[in-house]
Amino acid sequence: MGVNWVRAGSVYILLLGLILGAFLGSCNGGVSSRYARGNDISADMPLDSDVFALPVGYNAPQQVHITQGDHEGRGVIVSWVTPEEPGSNEVVYWAENSETKYSSLGTVVTYKYYNYSSPYIHHCTITNLEFDTKYFYEIGTGDVTRQFWFTTPPAVGPDVPYTFGLIGDLGQTFDSNRTLAHYESNPKGQAVLFVGDLSYADAYPLHDNNRWDSWARFVERSVAYQPWIWSAGNHEIDFLPEYGEGEPFKPYTHRYYVPYEASGSTSPLWYSIKRASAYIIVMSSYSAYGMYTPQYKWLISELPKVNRTETPWLIVVMHCPLYSTYTHHYMEGETMRVMFEKYFVQYKVDVVFSGHVHAYERTERISNIAYNIENGLCTPKYDGSAPVYITIGDGGNQEGLLYEMVDPQPLYSAFREPSYGHATFEIKNRTHAYYAWHRNQDGYAVEADSLWFHNLYWNSTQISSTASM
Amino acid sequence: MGVNWVRAGSVYILLLGLILGAFLGSCNGGVSSRYARGNDISADMPLDSDVFALPVGYNAPQQVHITQGDHEGRGVIVSWVTPEEPGSNEVVYWAENSETKYSSLGTVVTYKYYNYSSPYIHHCTITNLEFDTKYFYEIGTGDVTRQFWFTTPPAVGPDVPYTFGLIGDLGQTFDSNRTLAHYESNPKGQAVLFVGDLSYADAYPLHDNNRWDSWARFVERSVAYQPWIWSAGNHEIDFLPEYGEGEPFKPYTHRYYVPYEASGSTSPLWYSIKRASAYIIVMSSYSAYGMYTPQYKWLISELPKVNRTETPWLIVVMHCPLYSTYTHHYMEGETMRVMFEKYFVQYKVDVVFSGHVHAYERTERISNIAYNIENGLCTPKYDGSAPVYITIGDGGNQEGLLYEMVDPQPLYSAFREPSYGHATFEIKNRTHAYYAWHRNQDGYAVEADSLWFHNLYWNSTQISSTASM
Ligand SMILES: [Fe+2]
Ligand SMILES: [Fe+2]
Repeated sequence: MGVNWVRAGSVYILLLGLILGAFLGSCNGGVSSRYARGNDISADMPLDSDVFALPVGYNAPQQVHITQGDHEGRGVIVSWVTPEEPGSNEVVYWAENSETKYSSLGTVVTYKYYNYSSPYIHHCTITNLEFDTKYFYEIGTGDVTRQFWFTTPPAVGPDVPYTFGLIGDLGQTFDSNRTLAHYESNPKGQAVLFVGDLSYADAYPLHDNNRWDSWARFVERSVAYQPWIWSAGNHEIDFLPEYGEGEPFKPYTHRYYVPYEASGSTSPLWYSIKRASAYIIVMSSYSAYGMYTPQYKWLISELPKVNRTETPWLIVVMHCPLYSTYTHHYMEGETMRVMFEKYFVQYKVDVVFSGHVHAYERTERISNIAYNIENGLCTPKYDGSAPVYITIGDGGNQEGLLYEMVDPQPLYSAFREPSYGHATFEIKNRTHAYYAWHRNQDGYAVEADSLWFHNLYWNSTQISSTASM
Repeated sequence: MGVNWVRAGSVYILLLGLILGAFLGSCNGGVSSRYARGNDISADMPLDSDVFALPVGYNAPQQVHITQGDHEGRGVIVSWVTPEEPGSNEVVYWAENSETKYSSLGTVVTYKYYNYSSPYIHHCTITNLEFDTKYFYEIGTGDVTRQFWFTTPPAVGPDVPYTFGLIGDLGQTFDSNRTLAHYESNPKGQAVLFVGDLSYADAYPLHDNNRWDSWARFVERSVAYQPWIWSAGNHEIDFLPEYGEGEPFKPYTHRYYVPYEASGSTSPLWYSIKRASAYIIVMSSYSAYGMYTPQYKWLISELPKVNRTETPWLIVVMHCPLYSTYTHHYMEGETMRVMFEKYFVQYKVDVVFSGHVHAYERTERISNIAYNIENGLCTPKYDGSAPVYITIGDGGNQEGLLYEMVDPQPLYSAFREPSYGHATFEIKNRTHAYYAWHRNQDGYAVEADSLWFHNLYWNSTQISSTASM
């Protein structure tokens, strides 16, 4: 049922594989790309690596990260950590080209996780910012003051161009660092949709939460400057009841605040935001989602609220993919698929981004919602109203890549390749968006899969074209 | 897709229906019983009804209920409510035929639910009781002391006869009262497996929690004397975020304590107990159950622990049925079925008891676990290792009965009938158990469906016989 892709060290075999992959793709409609990296052993970067370096000075703010802080994009949550004492809760900020400085006060939280005591974790929500404006902000005081900046999105509107980056299952390996570097060097990305599995601290004994700290220092170079929109993966659960840690998502929810209340959610694990021309719905694969549950009730009331005349692009983010043709984690998303797929089709969700499977895959527009127990209709079919499902769990964590795939490639799988990388979703206007997956190829990010998305609401009769390699 | 059963007032039509039902049953393998009550409008009993009567005296203990208090059956949790002040936390208890009195101290909790403040809710766990012994117990002090009794189960062992009652979706209507009366008048039942949906307090404005209190007074006449093993239904969620009540299961978990820690669970919503010759696994349809979640991890480690040489009968209780052929709530259990059915077959679960659907149904031994997205194998099939699925959501709550069914009756449905009632599961020894469903028929409980269960572990090659009406 699976194929083990041979790791090809030679560029000749590599090229042959690319050609052969493209050829096979043209036969069966889907591409199983045979690009393979020479070395897929992803080792975590040591804690004394430069990427984890502490800022200089006593109690200097570290682990700075921002995310959207309201429903419309005029708010930002600024979070950071102070190691020695709480220090200042204040964020000072000002628009570029303005003399007026503002300040907001945040809160500070700490938590314990077995024998680990967290540093002081600050969260400060800034609201009522101007749209489409560059802001500088400062945290810390005296000679440990640190300055960063971000740019607010344009006002919500149907034809506002905006580009999201897609990163998932990042971890903190040398490969993670390559993925982040490639995303940083891509000038297009304005905000990241992070599809879950952040630090992989739970891979360490007692889920060593120092690796939550190191991860936040590692990604600061991007997330201090542009918002990452968070969703929770299984590595955020940190469930360790044998050591008294039975409360799921404890480190994650203390460290990563999201504006869930702004969308009427009762949990930070599911929520929505509008940003430019997109409506982003974040769901939780590892919370309750059965009928009558809070997440279910929230989603069912949320979907009808999406005004596609205001935000044409409806994007769902959830960690566990509903469709994946890699053998590891195969069908793990079924329980959620049978629950929600019909709504994604009904409300014409343009794309569902997931992670979890440590590889890359893009499906055709398909659905599998005709099943009624008795009718035998349980095969995914082309469906012009269905989302494209994209698995981008290839950030580069220490678990390595997955090579085993369902063979032959199912028709609903349009492109799959076990390589690290990131993607970009580049909204041009209400009808068109250009999507591209950027493979980590030695020192470079190489666009290895792409697709012009035709908006499902504004182009309801037109099927998105399938990409060529 | 559904059939509306005509409500037959006449006994002639009723008899005709029974004969016809049996005949149809012999044609297609399943029975859709046409018994129908003359009046199915289930009205809640008024709060001044005798069944809700307060005990006499200042601060007298009320709402007394017991459940198993440990994993083996030597413990009992005694719970009760005092309305005016906390009063005594003490339970005094002694074995029949013994002069020695013991006492245990419990805890008292309260909660607020919007504008409702709970009375003082006491929970006291008594442990190290003798097996198979009648105990008296007293709560309250002075002239408001109240005395009750219970009988502990025999020591856990493979051939210990023991009879469980099955009640679900009870509510507090005149029909609920009939169901409870019929169960009480059945001398066999030694403990109740309650399949969820207790009080239906959430049917009242602001989920009037006084109806949680009245319900507990209503059922005291049974549950003060024998343990009811609790599972949570959707009407236990009490999710009312628009009034600040966003914490699911708040009233339920404050009022109904269960011995979840004894089975290594981290939540009262899923747990297990051994009792006599049975191993009972309680699951939560409305908590997270995806892979990696606490409930999933607990179940996966729990199932291999069941020693069928010690407890031959493996019983699962969950509110939402995995199989139901009534049209209301149709396929609501799918999301949980695709997650757990394969384990139920692998570990030869004898029977899964559920509620939720307000009617009665019993399936054949079937499974539907061959599906792999691509193979088209998605039809329930006879499977000698699979559980029988029994829906017993017919306690009698105010929502009324469901009459619409999938028509024709699917082959996997062995017997279905929209009537109120309760059931009994009468374990004889390691190989045999007699199961019967007792319809509320006017003033009487009538055995309307029955089945000899052949234990799946000890009779693995023999299919349980199908009942005749
Ligand atoms: Fe994951
Ligand atoms: Fe229910």
